[in-house]
Amino acid sequence: MAVITLTTDFGALYPASLKAAILNICADATIVDISHTIPQGDILSGAFALYNTAHLFKKETVHVAVVDPGVGTCRKALILEAGGQYFVGPNNGLMIPAAHRCGKMRVWEILVDKLFPEISSTFHGRDVFAPIGAYLATGKKPEDLGKQSDCYVCLWIEEVRIEDETIRGKVNYIDDFGNIVTSIPARPLSNIIEVGDILEIEGNALRFVDTYANANPEETIALIGSHGFLEIAVSMGNAAERLSISGHPEICFQRITSTYNGE
Amino acid sequence: MAVITLTTDFGALYPASLKAAILNICADATIVDISHTIPQGDILSGAFALYNTAHLFKKETVHVAVVDPGVGTCRKALILEAGGQYFVGPNNGLMIPAAHRCGKMRVWEILVDKLFPEISSTFHGRDVFAPIGAYLATGKKPEDLGKQSDCYVCLWIEEVRIEDETIRGKVNYIDDFGNIVTSIPARPLSNIIEVGDILEIEGNALRFVDTYANANPEETIALIGSHGFLEIAVSMGNAAERLSISGHPEICFQRITSTYNGE
Amino acid sequence: MAVITLTTDFGALYPASLKAAILNICADATIVDISHTIPQGDILSGAFALYNTAHLFKKETVHVAVVDPGVGTCRKALILEAGGQYFVGPNNGLMIPAAHRCGKMRVWEILVDKLFPEISSTFHGRDVFAPIGAYLATGKKPEDLGKQSDCYVCLWIEEVRIEDETIRGKVNYIDDFGNIVTSIPARPLSNIIEVGDILEIEGNALRFVDTYANANPEETIALIGSHGFLEIAVSMGNAAERLSISGHPEICFQRITSTYNGE
Repeated sequence: MAVITLTTDFGALYPASLKAAILNICADATIVDISHTIPQGDILSGAFALYNTAHLFKKETVHVAVVDPGVGTCRKALILEAGGQYFVGPNNGLMIPAAHRCGKMRVWEILVDKLFPEISSTFHGRDVFAPIGAYLATGKKPEDLGKQSDCYVCLWIEEVRIEDETIRGKVNYIDDFGNIVTSIPARPLSNIIEVGDILEIEGNALRFVDTYANANPEETIALIGSHGFLEIAVSMGNAAERLSISGHPEICFQRITSTYNGE
Repeated sequence: MAVITLTTDFGALYPASLKAAILNICADATIVDISHTIPQGDILSGAFALYNTAHLFKKETVHVAVVDPGVGTCRKALILEAGGQYFVGPNNGLMIPAAHRCGKMRVWEILVDKLFPEISSTFHGRDVFAPIGAYLATGKKPEDLGKQSDCYVCLWIEEVRIEDETIRGKVNYIDDFGNIVTSIPARPLSNIIEVGDILEIEGNALRFVDTYANANPEETIALIGSHGFLEIAVSMGNAAERLSISGHPEICFQRITSTYNGE
Repeated sequence: MAVITLTTDFGALYPASLKAAILNICADATIVDISHTIPQGDILSGAFALYNTAHLFKKETVHVAVVDPGVGTCRKALILEAGGQYFVGPNNGLMIPAAHRCGKMRVWEILVDKLFPEISSTFHGRDVFAPIGAYLATGKKPEDLGKQSDCYVCLWIEEVRIEDETIRGKVNYIDDFGNIVTSIPARPLSNIIEVGDILEIEGNALRFVDTYANANPEETIALIGSHGFLEIAVSMGNAAERLSISGHPEICFQRITSTYNGE
């Protein structure tokens, strides 16, 4: 039973076109929507969504990802293979963090002009990426669909600099609830902050907790989310609105007090 | 062909993680989304969504429900069986109305610590409930996954008091269109109001009709919805906005005129 | 493997009821959501969504479409067959453009009273259209479910009048990003405008481009979308908000300059 996931910025209407293209080639595919509400053209948010989810799937899963502001230009189309899973999408970094998380990566450039001589200039998702994904799901090999390559656009979602009591990173993703997922991974933090510590970000104090349930109503908190990154949240509220954060700005935390020093 | 439904407050991104966990265990599951836009932590809205839908599925369907403000605390995790269907989720009442609607109920407490010794503290949906649901779908028995229990949190969605011409209840659910579904079931109403009667709620007059199509544009109406409860709606409009109702307040109707008395 | 698509104005909660009804009859159906966020009662938007997508599916696909402001009245329920695909929904024009695009059309009136003697007056989607769609997917013939008819409500989504430098049409659909899809098809335009031409609509100048990627940030552009119609878009922005367009108004373009005349 082939599994194909979809991660796009297409909104409500256009994903069904990809599903038609997939089912026409691989009739018994199980199609899983990762997200279709990635902000338009926001490659980093798309990359994070895929990173957060793809590694959970089993081998031979095919991930079709289309956040593609360069569609219609000469940007290339890629197949990646890592840890036995496949990724299909544009060469703009979108798939790189997820693929790295799955294992060692191999890359093919899809021979679009040869395989799809008459395609629409604006809908590669439907006309290129979905069919290629479906072919992979039916057992076709990447080498039949592209030529191996070692040249591709990179993108990193892990980004942290720690100096004394200051932790710098950027915003990777803002979820539907306004929770702000940063680029700061859990590991280096454990040397610096502990549950109960108070951090400051742009004048806002936030308590570092281990789980949402330990926050007070409307309290601003920081925690390590299930994705493994530092996350800012407001219990029963919207952190992105409270902190006026949108997009992917740099952010800077300072530890201002510690429960261990203070008592 | 196993059917597994999902009802969560996870928004757009996180449901795919549950689907990965399910498909890894039960590759041929048909997964149906009931809703992922339950307001965060709103157990009653989640309970209504599940109540509205679960009984329509056939025997052996597994309903995984995760509206779980208590995740990370010591709240228990449950399996319910009723009418041949299974329910998996937190012990906070979420699944009780839906299970009651399916038939006589049996309850097991999931042995989380034994089955999942190393789970994340914040994502029981992916790490506990989805796998348990998938195991049930593959034919595992509840007694292999938990210990039978007769202690669980209850929740009732049917609530009505009728005194003379006054009907009291509460708001169970506000749908995407602002239609207000109350806790007042159809049956006792049929003794008091008839199609054409005028009700009053907080200064607003509303006509009791049998179907949306019989409302005038922008008219505030009351009707028995397909779910079997009294519902307040505005034709081509948003009743929750017009009446400034959000959450689950108590509501009180009065019959002010009747088409039968008045003519 | 039967494929059944769903196109409704039901929002988040109610589509799962249709899926239950379908899976109870056709357990191995692959169900594809085309859209459940059609504006309530907006038949033309629903018709465009279905037109945009249905023809991409293979033969024997069943399309269940429910944008049905007339539910509960005496409007009829139809099965259409065109190009080997089936359409099931209300007789209000919703399915006509999509069916025409698939091929020559045959029409049956569903014998609702005979097949479903005890149905809810407000939820034909769940109680009539979904089961009929599932029966067709299992191989039942339209003639077993309805009587052939040649009387049905029509709806056209292609509408254009061209006089000199003026192009008139209407708005067919506004997508999630505020892109305005018009009723003006590509073909007659190619005689009048070319890539680089400047059009004017209600005081706004917009450049006719071949692909989104060739627009400047926040520029208002016109292009032929993947659906084959003239579309107005704002790069990285919302055209419907910028032009204050909602619903389905008539629109009128004028060619004010041409890159070929001007140089």
